[in-house]
Amino acid sequence: MALLIQNGEIVTADSRYVADIWCENETITAIGKNLPVPQDAHVIDARGKLVFPGFVDPHTHIYLYAMGTYAKDTYETGTIAALCGGTTTLIDFVNPQRQEGSLEALEKWRQQTVNPCCDYTCHMTVSHLDAQIENELREVVLQHGITSFKIFFAYKDFLGMNDGDIYKTLLLAKELGVVTAAHCENAHIIDIRQQQFVDDKKLTTEYHHHSRPPILEAEGTHRLCVMSELIGGEVYVVHLSCEEALQKVIAAKMRGVNIHAETLIQYLLLDKSHAELPNFEGAKYIMSPPLRDKKNQKILWNALHQGFLATVATDHAPFDWQQRQMGKENFCNIPNGIPSLEDRIRLLYTHGVNTGKIDIHRFVDVASTRAAKIFGLFPRKGTIQVGCDADLVIYDPHVEETISANTHHMNIDYSVFEGIKVKGRCHAVTVRGHVQVRDGQFTGQKGIGKFLKRQPRSH
Amino acid sequence: MALLIQNGEIVTADSRYVADIWCENETITAIGKNLPVPQDAHVIDARGKLVFPGFVDPHTHIYLYAMGTYAKDTYETGTIAALCGGTTTLIDFVNPQRQEGSLEALEKWRQQTVNPCCDYTCHMTVSHLDAQIENELREVVLQHGITSFKIFFAYKDFLGMNDGDIYKTLLLAKELGVVTAAHCENAHIIDIRQQQFVDDKKLTTEYHHHSRPPILEAEGTHRLCVMSELIGGEVYVVHLSCEEALQKVIAAKMRGVNIHAETLIQYLLLDKSHAELPNFEGAKYIMSPPLRDKKNQKILWNALHQGFLATVATDHAPFDWQQRQMGKENFCNIPNGIPSLEDRIRLLYTHGVNTGKIDIHRFVDVASTRAAKIFGLFPRKGTIQVGCDADLVIYDPHVEETISANTHHMNIDYSVFEGIKVKGRCHAVTVRGHVQVRDGQFTGQKGIGKFLKRQPRSH
Amino acid sequence: MALLIQNGEIVTADSRYVADIWCENETITAIGKNLPVPQDAHVIDARGKLVFPGFVDPHTHIYLYAMGTYAKDTYETGTIAALCGGTTTLIDFVNPQRQEGSLEALEKWRQQTVNPCCDYTCHMTVSHLDAQIENELREVVLQHGITSFKIFFAYKDFLGMNDGDIYKTLLLAKELGVVTAAHCENAHIIDIRQQQFVDDKKLTTEYHHHSRPPILEAEGTHRLCVMSELIGGEVYVVHLSCEEALQKVIAAKMRGVNIHAETLIQYLLLDKSHAELPNFEGAKYIMSPPLRDKKNQKILWNALHQGFLATVATDHAPFDWQQRQMGKENFCNIPNGIPSLEDRIRLLYTHGVNTGKIDIHRFVDVASTRAAKIFGLFPRKGTIQVGCDADLVIYDPHVEETISANTHHMNIDYSVFEGIKVKGRCHAVTVRGHVQVRDGQFTGQKGIGKFLKRQPRSH
Amino acid sequence: MALLIQNGEIVTADSRYVADIWCENETITAIGKNLPVPQDAHVIDARGKLVFPGFVDPHTHIYLYAMGTYAKDTYETGTIAALCGGTTTLIDFVNPQRQEGSLEALEKWRQQTVNPCCDYTCHMTVSHLDAQIENELREVVLQHGITSFKIFFAYKDFLGMNDGDIYKTLLLAKELGVVTAAHCENAHIIDIRQQQFVDDKKLTTEYHHHSRPPILEAEGTHRLCVMSELIGGEVYVVHLSCEEALQKVIAAKMRGVNIHAETLIQYLLLDKSHAELPNFEGAKYIMSPPLRDKKNQKILWNALHQGFLATVATDHAPFDWQQRQMGKENFCNIPNGIPSLEDRIRLLYTHGVNTGKIDIHRFVDVASTRAAKIFGLFPRKGTIQVGCDADLVIYDPHVEETISANTHHMNIDYSVFEGIKVKGRCHAVTVRGHVQVRDGQFTGQKGIGKFLKRQPRSH
Repeated sequence: MALLIQNGEIVTADSRYVADIWCENETITAIGKNLPVPQDAHVIDARGKLVFPGFVDPHTHIYLYAMGTYAKDTYETGTIAALCGGTTTLIDFVNPQRQEGSLEALEKWRQQTVNPCCDYTCHMTVSHLDAQIENELREVVLQHGITSFKIFFAYKDFLGMNDGDIYKTLLLAKELGVVTAAHCENAHIIDIRQQQFVDDKKLTTEYHHHSRPPILEAEGTHRLCVMSELIGGEVYVVHLSCEEALQKVIAAKMRGVNIHAETLIQYLLLDKSHAELPNFEGAKYIMSPPLRDKKNQKILWNALHQGFLATVATDHAPFDWQQRQMGKENFCNIPNGIPSLEDRIRLLYTHGVNTGKIDIHRFVDVASTRAAKIFGLFPRKGTIQVGCDADLVIYDPHVEETISANTHHMNIDYSVFEGIKVKGRCHAVTVRGHVQVRDGQFTGQKGIGKFLKRQPRSH
Repeated sequence: MALLIQNGEIVTADSRYVADIWCENETITAIGKNLPVPQDAHVIDARGKLVFPGFVDPHTHIYLYAMGTYAKDTYETGTIAALCGGTTTLIDFVNPQRQEGSLEALEKWRQQTVNPCCDYTCHMTVSHLDAQIENELREVVLQHGITSFKIFFAYKDFLGMNDGDIYKTLLLAKELGVVTAAHCENAHIIDIRQQQFVDDKKLTTEYHHHSRPPILEAEGTHRLCVMSELIGGEVYVVHLSCEEALQKVIAAKMRGVNIHAETLIQYLLLDKSHAELPNFEGAKYIMSPPLRDKKNQKILWNALHQGFLATVATDHAPFDWQQRQMGKENFCNIPNGIPSLEDRIRLLYTHGVNTGKIDIHRFVDVASTRAAKIFGLFPRKGTIQVGCDADLVIYDPHVEETISANTHHMNIDYSVFEGIKVKGRCHAVTVRGHVQVRDGQFTGQKGIGKFLKRQPRSH
Repeated sequence: MALLIQNGEIVTADSRYVADIWCENETITAIGKNLPVPQDAHVIDARGKLVFPGFVDPHTHIYLYAMGTYAKDTYETGTIAALCGGTTTLIDFVNPQRQEGSLEALEKWRQQTVNPCCDYTCHMTVSHLDAQIENELREVVLQHGITSFKIFFAYKDFLGMNDGDIYKTLLLAKELGVVTAAHCENAHIIDIRQQQFVDDKKLTTEYHHHSRPPILEAEGTHRLCVMSELIGGEVYVVHLSCEEALQKVIAAKMRGVNIHAETLIQYLLLDKSHAELPNFEGAKYIMSPPLRDKKNQKILWNALHQGFLATVATDHAPFDWQQRQMGKENFCNIPNGIPSLEDRIRLLYTHGVNTGKIDIHRFVDVASTRAAKIFGLFPRKGTIQVGCDADLVIYDPHVEETISANTHHMNIDYSVFEGIKVKGRCHAVTVRGHVQVRDGQFTGQKGIGKFLKRQPRSH
Repeated sequence: MALLIQNGEIVTADSRYVADIWCENETITAIGKNLPVPQDAHVIDARGKLVFPGFVDPHTHIYLYAMGTYAKDTYETGTIAALCGGTTTLIDFVNPQRQEGSLEALEKWRQQTVNPCCDYTCHMTVSHLDAQIENELREVVLQHGITSFKIFFAYKDFLGMNDGDIYKTLLLAKELGVVTAAHCENAHIIDIRQQQFVDDKKLTTEYHHHSRPPILEAEGTHRLCVMSELIGGEVYVVHLSCEEALQKVIAAKMRGVNIHAETLIQYLLLDKSHAELPNFEGAKYIMSPPLRDKKNQKILWNALHQGFLATVATDHAPFDWQQRQMGKENFCNIPNGIPSLEDRIRLLYTHGVNTGKIDIHRFVDVASTRAAKIFGLFPRKGTIQVGCDADLVIYDPHVEETISANTHHMNIDYSVFEGIKVKGRCHAVTVRGHVQVRDGQFTGQKGIGKFLKRQPRSH
């Protein structure tokens, strides 16, 4: 059924105007003033509301396996939570264990993607590299349309690779026209520091961040930059958390390196003092890289404003309170990740746009357009134009709500943003013209989400 | 009369798609697939062509007075040349002499703006500051809608001010919500260096650039950054030419300074060896800051790609060959400026987009959108959206032409780009729906260009 | 009479050993184990004590004229205080007012140098430059042996010059082989900021430092570096107080600029919170550049350790408590300077060497040797070697004393270091073999201090 | 027998004067004017000559095992060559293979130190680390007086360790008060690049430097800095060759890292074009890090002048022309190292002091004093003072000679400095008062050289 969105204030990364949007066959087909209203059309009155392109979260772990346990969201709960928060496209991860083939892991991941309610794709993690894996990766890219790799400088005993294999992966990525996302923390040194803390019986939550200080993130970031400078491909730093790493990215950009950096909504709003909360409360705030000193927040907001940072993601990894208990006696055993898939957009709007830290066009850019461009989804996703997928967020900026685990849709029994007020609510959210959300609640159809095949960059 | 542009590939800073554009009452009113074709509409078939928002040149001196002579373009010839090259909006300058009032100079400038063929506005130069001028500047901003100032660290005996008056101007600009553009070269030191060369009988064209080395541009840029950091307003570095100055801008951005920087098409394509050509040929290549060592070109292109530089302008100052002769015996007397108003877009497309140095969205951004945003013309100018002015460039990327003084429309008897091939020609150019250019030639109506009143930033 | 210093532990910038020192005719003539003891020799037993070369303070204002009043030390009181603290050579300033000739001011200064008890010379301030002054400066250098200039980016209405005259002074300095010392704060902007505070009735002591923030010192420092880079001479930044300025110096060194930087003992130990003390107590802590945020102390100590900073001086300007009252109603009228001529060496030893922040060789280097080298006094001063002036400090590191205005020798009725404990006391201090100090008290002969004629650098 | 050196111009890092030096029992016992001449003393007339402290080469491989072959100098030939060139102390290396114990390797090395003609010590390479090796290293330091470690980021399959083991080694070094020297090139990436060249049949000498570009040296240097910043120990970068790595060192110094850097005489005078010479001639110029672009020379000289670099060494590794042939078919198989032990001092004097690039005190500092201080030999070595070892170089700066393999004393059949003129010759060289060299020729006694036991830093 066709959809007409009337009189909304359309805002993209480079435009802002009031008009009607006409959607047919899952795409936008016309934008204009006073478009005719066919009798059978579904009409949404968007007067006084903002109309954004559907938001893209380029970094989620819906159903992550880690430390012998699985994160709590399913594709159904995760995508519903995403939609209620305005995110209409996810980029998830396929993380093959080291003994596993890429294709095997991909197949396993596909089986988890049950009942998706919004569109999605994934990055393919490369955790070891040999001739067999190289062949499989070619197939992953060329046949399966997965055009981004993920590598780890961290986690040397699980997903991490040494500099040689990382370098080879980047060579392959360049050849295939694939962007490589990287987790840039120095694994070897963090491991030793953690062992030192364990030996010294320093086991509480704050030692998590003491074990992985900012300069170790900066070190890995620098190493990635150096490799990329030599090879010439395109790289993407995930979850950049601090000034030290940011400086490496900017210096690389100045030398001509084709690099993008992502920060997370958590780093913009939380800081390491949260991870130092007593009575194991800090465990809710454990992620890697860890929450940093508060002074970094101003620097990250400025970097978004100035265009040094490309995207804001969540690294959503929903381990619940019981799972967190695994690390009660030793911070090393706390499953990492701070659930926030549902909250990203409203927090960013409230604390970024409303405060003037970033303007509304940058908001759209960092939360939608840029991720779509970097990861080969643009212009299908990431903007509002004739011909693109009708993924739209009709946002009511006047509603004020309070975040709470009682009301959120993520399958998690706490919220690190509990009690925080946000400005705005998703009046309606559409996925390819299907209205999936009304007034912040999922009212749509389960299972309509599609896997998005992508094309590698042509050179 | 209404205008319909059919089937063009529309490209803005954040979108790319094929659609029809419908223009009425000087604005775009609908964008869609297969829009109906009313009988009386003017129709342009844009199939196979690119449709860009009209380009904005934020830095021109159409009828500049300097060294006792006037630059050769009139508002009529200058705007026609601009349009033939795809530029539909100019930002010119009102340069009061030091003994002159701002309003008096504005009035004089208005009298020069005869028969404009495209839209335009101006920056107001502040060359001295006292209570009277301060009052006049308030009127300039609030009554006349001129919301950008220009200051000079250079030219101390003419337009330049000392640090104290510059600082006060920036304070006033912040209070009024006005952006301040700055020419950042250290006047005192350049003057002494020029005098040294004159004393040593080093009078040929190459001493122009020896007298104003990159670090003196960087020095002034740094001083501007420091002032802006203290005050907090918004500043804009005009004609940034070299790595040294760029580094100061990036460092300032990292510290949170609200600064933008413009480079010129000349710096991207020409270098100081041109100014060293024998037989006074180098005189055609004299501008300030001067053409730099060729190695800077790569750095400037990268800075455009990375988003460190905001805009590409021309600093168009059309002195002809005879006027250049004034400096035959002494480089200090050569009127400055390299005419290029007409050539900017095609050169940038050819050498930027076609070579892959910048992508087509950045091209639109740096040549149109960003300038419109910074200088308060957005979204009226700078993008393609329902409701904006119907300023459109229908660009045929398949035509190849050769730049020549014989064929260009600027009132200048030479071209520094003589013989250079460019990819693309303006198939049609519209100003608020008026088709002013066809196949690269002016075919429209003189005098329809309007002065654009702007609003200061609200804080 | 000959002097024999037995069994001291001699420490210079590059040596450390136990030996006897034999002095005759004002110089050291032999160093050895178990030197013979002639019957008529004066013998000092230095066993268990350190023997340092006499310390050099390259930045003092013994009898400064400022704001209509004169600082309180005379050459007699000032040099006695210096000696009691281990300083055996001063470099003072001749500050011609703008309407005054250099030679005239020099003559006036000479008349103040009555009864000097240690050796001394001066820097010649250049506060304006024309043909007449240029001739006089040549005479100052070549006839009078004053081989260092001082310039001011600060104090534009008194001693400061604009960039053009500073640049010309640096050209002249280079030609004459003279080092130029510079006070690097941006005068214009500080003046406006002070006027703003005065207008806003913000008149208490803390507004002194708010009016001259670190980036304005860094700005002037950067400007000096740029000029020196263009010209190629040798420059010396006086009283560097903060990280921001330090970074400019280091960056300049990396580009090959021949630059040295001095910090002051005050910046190493005091911070801006002192200048914020209530009840006008902060007035004792007013100097320019002002005391900075405490975090700079660690950075300055590290810079001394790493060799980024060359010297530690005092900028001794002894205005007493009554003179400070001039600024009771308005911080702008407080005479600047924190008296510390007598305390420098013991504070530096206690807080630098004893804490391990700098090693004992660096201590000698920054407090003596390096200043002597930079300002043309080496090897006559600044080290312990056969043939050099017998300026020696026999230091007992085991005595602990407490600094107090009740006991110090400076003609000042307070001490900003009141109550601070120091390790060590000058067991004896000699000037050219004359024992001037015993057990921290002046016991010598007044008037034996000599003006030191210096040679310009040969190129 | 006692030795008297009369009337030489003594020059150390911080002194310069004419005096006599009296040596007894291997040490200097007196320095003075006109010292008495005992009848049985050996007297050297040093009038008109310079007297330097014996020079220290902190980085030699006298009898290096590499690629299945041994470098050509023995301790006898190597130390004679060193002495003829003015070097009186060597710091060599013990390089345990990975399966070998530290003590076993030390014993093997001791057996090679036959007939040493000057004093020496060694750095202990750590090529793997476990509990057994850790115990042995404690013994190496505490019993054997070897107080410096060497680690390799390069050569991963031979001497290199991963980041974890390097970090642990630095922890141990800090605990023991030991300085750690590091070869900072990224092994993994160089290996892959070399394999790529081999696969592409790019086998000639210039691919050596293409395989290990400057940013890979900078990368390793940065990683070392990061580890040292976390741990807090003292580190020493060997053979720094380029601006990129230098910037990392300076940045680390600014952050307070206790780091020193060494460059080599080869990098100051040769460049990569030498390694590109045809007909395998380039093979003589193969070392790692490789010779760099010529522009680095100016930067390294400036860094010496400014104090950013601490020392100038040789990395002497004397493989002869026949051994070089091993790499005829493949640059990877050329034994690395450019023999220069004998030439360092005269080249540095000629190209550094005589040209004014560094002053004569810095010359002594970088070639002697600083190495002695860093590696625990000071003040026994590295300066001229009463009580220190009588290691003296009486240098005649007026003699001009030409370097040639025909006349040098190194056991090598070519010289990369063949035909280069040097200013100065060692008129005499003493080791603990023994005159070992006269007029540039060895005339002394073989086997008098001693192993120097050192003390770790006390904390």
